[in-house]
Amino acid sequence: MRIGLLGFGVVGKGVYDICAKMPELQVAKVLCLEDISLPDAEVVGDIHAIWEDETIDTVIEAMGGLHPAYEFVRGAIEAGKNIVTSNKALVANFYDDLIPLAKAKGVKFRCTAAVGGGIGWLSELERANRVQIIEQVGGIMNGTCNYILDSMTRLGLGYDEALKQAQGLGYAEANPTTDVEGIDTWHKVILSSNIAFGISLDSATVPVAGISKITGEDVANFTAHGYVCKLISTGKRTEKGFSVFVQPTLCPQGSPEAAVPMNYNLITLIGDTSARMSFFGQGAGRYPTAYNVVQDCMEFLNGKGFYCEYGPKTAATNDICLSYYVRGGWDGEVAETWGDAVITKPVSVSVMHAWLAEHPGAFIAAIADAI
Amino acid sequence: MRIGLLGFGVVGKGVYDICAKMPELQVAKVLCLEDISLPDAEVVGDIHAIWEDETIDTVIEAMGGLHPAYEFVRGAIEAGKNIVTSNKALVANFYDDLIPLAKAKGVKFRCTAAVGGGIGWLSELERANRVQIIEQVGGIMNGTCNYILDSMTRLGLGYDEALKQAQGLGYAEANPTTDVEGIDTWHKVILSSNIAFGISLDSATVPVAGISKITGEDVANFTAHGYVCKLISTGKRTEKGFSVFVQPTLCPQGSPEAAVPMNYNLITLIGDTSARMSFFGQGAGRYPTAYNVVQDCMEFLNGKGFYCEYGPKTAATNDICLSYYVRGGWDGEVAETWGDAVITKPVSVSVMHAWLAEHPGAFIAAIADAI
Repeated sequence: MRIGLLGFGVVGKGVYDICAKMPELQVAKVLCLEDISLPDAEVVGDIHAIWEDETIDTVIEAMGGLHPAYEFVRGAIEAGKNIVTSNKALVANFYDDLIPLAKAKGVKFRCTAAVGGGIGWLSELERANRVQIIEQVGGIMNGTCNYILDSMTRLGLGYDEALKQAQGLGYAEANPTTDVEGIDTWHKVILSSNIAFGISLDSATVPVAGISKITGEDVANFTAHGYVCKLISTGKRTEKGFSVFVQPTLCPQGSPEAAVPMNYNLITLIGDTSARMSFFGQGAGRYPTAYNVVQDCMEFLNGKGFYCEYGPKTAATNDICLSYYVRGGWDGEVAETWGDAVITKPVSVSVMHAWLAEHPGAFIAAIADAI
Repeated sequence: MRIGLLGFGVVGKGVYDICAKMPELQVAKVLCLEDISLPDAEVVGDIHAIWEDETIDTVIEAMGGLHPAYEFVRGAIEAGKNIVTSNKALVANFYDDLIPLAKAKGVKFRCTAAVGGGIGWLSELERANRVQIIEQVGGIMNGTCNYILDSMTRLGLGYDEALKQAQGLGYAEANPTTDVEGIDTWHKVILSSNIAFGISLDSATVPVAGISKITGEDVANFTAHGYVCKLISTGKRTEKGFSVFVQPTLCPQGSPEAAVPMNYNLITLIGDTSARMSFFGQGAGRYPTAYNVVQDCMEFLNGKGFYCEYGPKTAATNDICLSYYVRGGWDGEVAETWGDAVITKPVSVSVMHAWLAEHPGAFIAAIADAI
């Protein structure tokens, strides 16, 4: 396999290092705007040098961001090259464009490292779908949020303090919005649901609530009641269709989710024969992410392409009902009071997220069942 | 694929049910001594009816036990049939016989359901080995022990009471020796290490300590010191070779291992690029186990055979040093005293297990590091 590698940052350098040890994977050209030189790959500054190189069969996109990653990947597909990317925003946003195009052009496309980093999650969904019906996917998909919530729970830090510590350690970016508002997790659960269920979710119907409004008092409240708060994604097959959403969730102390430390992920599938299976690992980082990029290249050598058929456009129904912790002006039915906050009577996910959109200062967290 | 299915018990019936929904997998004959009839498979009482049926290309062994499972599988390999089995005792005991024989005869052999039931653990080791060096494997591999230890920890039950409850719920057998003395886990870590490291372990060099001597007082002691006891297997690449052993282990409260409830498993690999990845799921049960038996059949259709090359005969060194909780006559160096028991200064695994063999009434548990 002769590879054109787009980007030489955290992931790109990791991919390059692993491929250097694998004779079947040859990085021929690296697209990089910085002035570097590499012993066994040509460094180019113009994407045409990769698009137009007929000896290159596979393009690995490791640039991040939507633009020009989208244009570069699209052009590579048009040029007949297989694609591997770890860019969840790219695949989630342009799913309806890139996946059918790749099929039409007869090129392979994989993005295993886009969800779960070192965990082979999307490949596992593909494997599960061979034999069973997947009923549910989701879990802890963002290491930044987990790090912040874990520090607040274990060390008693406030939100700002925990965020600052995470930034200092490189677990959160200077502008943490994409992580803490749940956008990264939202991309990942949309992509996971598309592959698990063979659909193409209308992302406008997938609600997301993040963790930026949580306070140390909320966390103390959860601890006192035997819960640990995590940012949890859910994609669930129901009688009426599919419910897909992202929200802070209270997990019972002693449950597997509650025990996920630091910046780890824990992602779960429930299948009709395998029952519950969960995958725990580093959701990000140079080598864990690069590991699954290289695994995708190996799958190409085994003849595998995309994980599933491109599925029909689908709106999430979100009609399932949950009890919620709400701090900030809840005016619906109340089951219990926890200090300044309330526990609601069960309310549908869509109703709660519609209410939250009207009350942007409130903090909500769903209450999860034990295993 | 035309399949000869040996056995129609818990796993066999599950395999039959799943295959009935998959047109590419046809169960042609079922070997069963009971008087049953099936709508779309011939029930036979004589293994020769399967060995000598040239239309059958794959034999699934779902009988359990060593004999006649071994003779039946060996004969099927001799007859040129691919083998799938979930029988860890069979594969661990006859590894040096069956794996080279299958290679010599050019037949495929897989046993994914033998470790972790519904977790695709051995397939994951195969996948990991394509790209990285596996440094460590192991974890909670026996649901019976986990159920007993979990009941003792969470409900404060004594050992006998917890065992009885597990038996009543079908999580432990009437004769629980294989599970509670760690033999089942021992088979699983030997098989996992063989595949992860490409070796054939001399099982006589792999020590095992079980949980049957644990008391409610031990567990109260662990809880008071912030630990949860689990039966943990370890297979670790070291400078001197490989350390492989099974022993009760004290995991810090709040760690992923400590949070594994009921009869679940949590199995971990550490690779030089992926870092830590763990797999959580049902380690047994009809459909989870049958799920991975059927997955192995699908791998045959994709051209895959055994997970690795058959490796050189290897003795475990077990020279790594750990601190242990010991109740019952420890005469070596002591770091701390916990009630009637002591915490030893670090001592090598091989020295501790040699000591335990001389003191069969004692209970030991290694102290694990946090993640």
